[in-house]
Amino acid sequence: MRYPAPVQRLVDAFLVLPGIGRRTAVRFAYSLVYGSKEDAIKLAKAIEELHPNLTRCQLCFSYSEKNPCAICVNSSREQDLLCVVADDRTISAIEQTGSYKGRYFVLGGVLNPVDGVSPAELELTALHRRMQEATIQEVFLAFDADTNGEATVSYLTQELRKYNAKITKPARGLPAGSRLEYADEVTLGAAILERRNGKNNDLS
Amino acid sequence: MRYPAPVQRLVDAFLVLPGIGRRTAVRFAYSLVYGSKEDAIKLAKAIEELHPNLTRCQLCFSYSEKNPCAICVNSSREQDLLCVVADDRTISAIEQTGSYKGRYFVLGGVLNPVDGVSPAELELTALHRRMQEATIQEVFLAFDADTNGEATVSYLTQELRKYNAKITKPARGLPAGSRLEYADEVTLGAAILERRNGKNNDLS
Repeated sequence: MRYPAPVQRLVDAFLVLPGIGRRTAVRFAYSLVYGSKEDAIKLAKAIEELHPNLTRCQLCFSYSEKNPCAICVNSSREQDLLCVVADDRTISAIEQTGSYKGRYFVLGGVLNPVDGVSPAELELTALHRRMQEATIQEVFLAFDADTNGEATVSYLTQELRKYNAKITKPARGLPAGSRLEYADEVTLGAAILERRNGKNNDLS
Repeated sequence: MRYPAPVQRLVDAFLVLPGIGRRTAVRFAYSLVYGSKEDAIKLAKAIEELHPNLTRCQLCFSYSEKNPCAICVNSSREQDLLCVVADDRTISAIEQTGSYKGRYFVLGGVLNPVDGVSPAELELTALHRRMQEATIQEVFLAFDADTNGEATVSYLTQELRKYNAKITKPARGLPAGSRLEYADEVTLGAAILERRNGKNNDLS
């Protein structure tokens, strides 16, 4: 005997979640055993109804309840501004800022030589099609500020050069609430090089 | 917009799991979005089928597929040896050692003044009933070696004194594979005080 069969099956099923080992899976399983039936049913239903209620938008490749998704069909969003992201989570992060009013394109990952992600694994063909079909004035490459993100940005910059669209990336600088003296040298260096113009009182 | 509604519902549902905050819940949710439908369905089913397939054994109070549970009805297990544990997980841990052949009683927690767990919250009445009905020769109090575990053991030792059963606890000493010089002083002290007899070559 290890655990009662229903508990053991749940422990095994929890192992598919990222970063979850057997000990945590057991803790999760018993928290549901000891917890309320309603919470457990709610979790089961939410998982069960995930895939049937999600589809991929054939314009931006994000997961959404509708195809095309609500952002792609929203005519009040800027049509000539396209933000390329690695995955759906970045869209949520950007939307929460309220600072972006263009559309999106989900590349489906970043170039990653270690994990063997080459350009062939990404939605590059669809991105080229999107660039050809639409009149994009600016492509905003919103990738993580790490090695793989940087490599993907530099690769995309080459790839998209021929479309005559402006290619932009998120500004580098000091994060909100940070203290200058504790900033790492790369961040502080970028904040100095990309320092904003203080003339005409246009600093917010 | 935060996340698509089916994702948001799943994120909220994941928050019931112990130690899971919103960021991890989002990571879990998207790992199921990006992952295989089969894994998701398997997890949903395992959660859904947990409570309907588990019942509490009315003899030992463990969660089990049957009442009474497989251990309580197993006549080859020692009937006069009873192990009292805080919760079901301890049973699994003890069973995996193969070193215990008696039966169990799940107390349903430990005394915890900080969280307000008093003797009234534990299955003490049922434990007394069990002690009265069965001929228990030895009560093995298998609780964590921390403050609440110790307090519970000392409380139970008082409570069960009147039954004339031998009251035992797990031995204290060096964990397997440990190096003597790195043992903490309490552990090493216990290992010295409870040192085993080396005569007659009976040390394994």
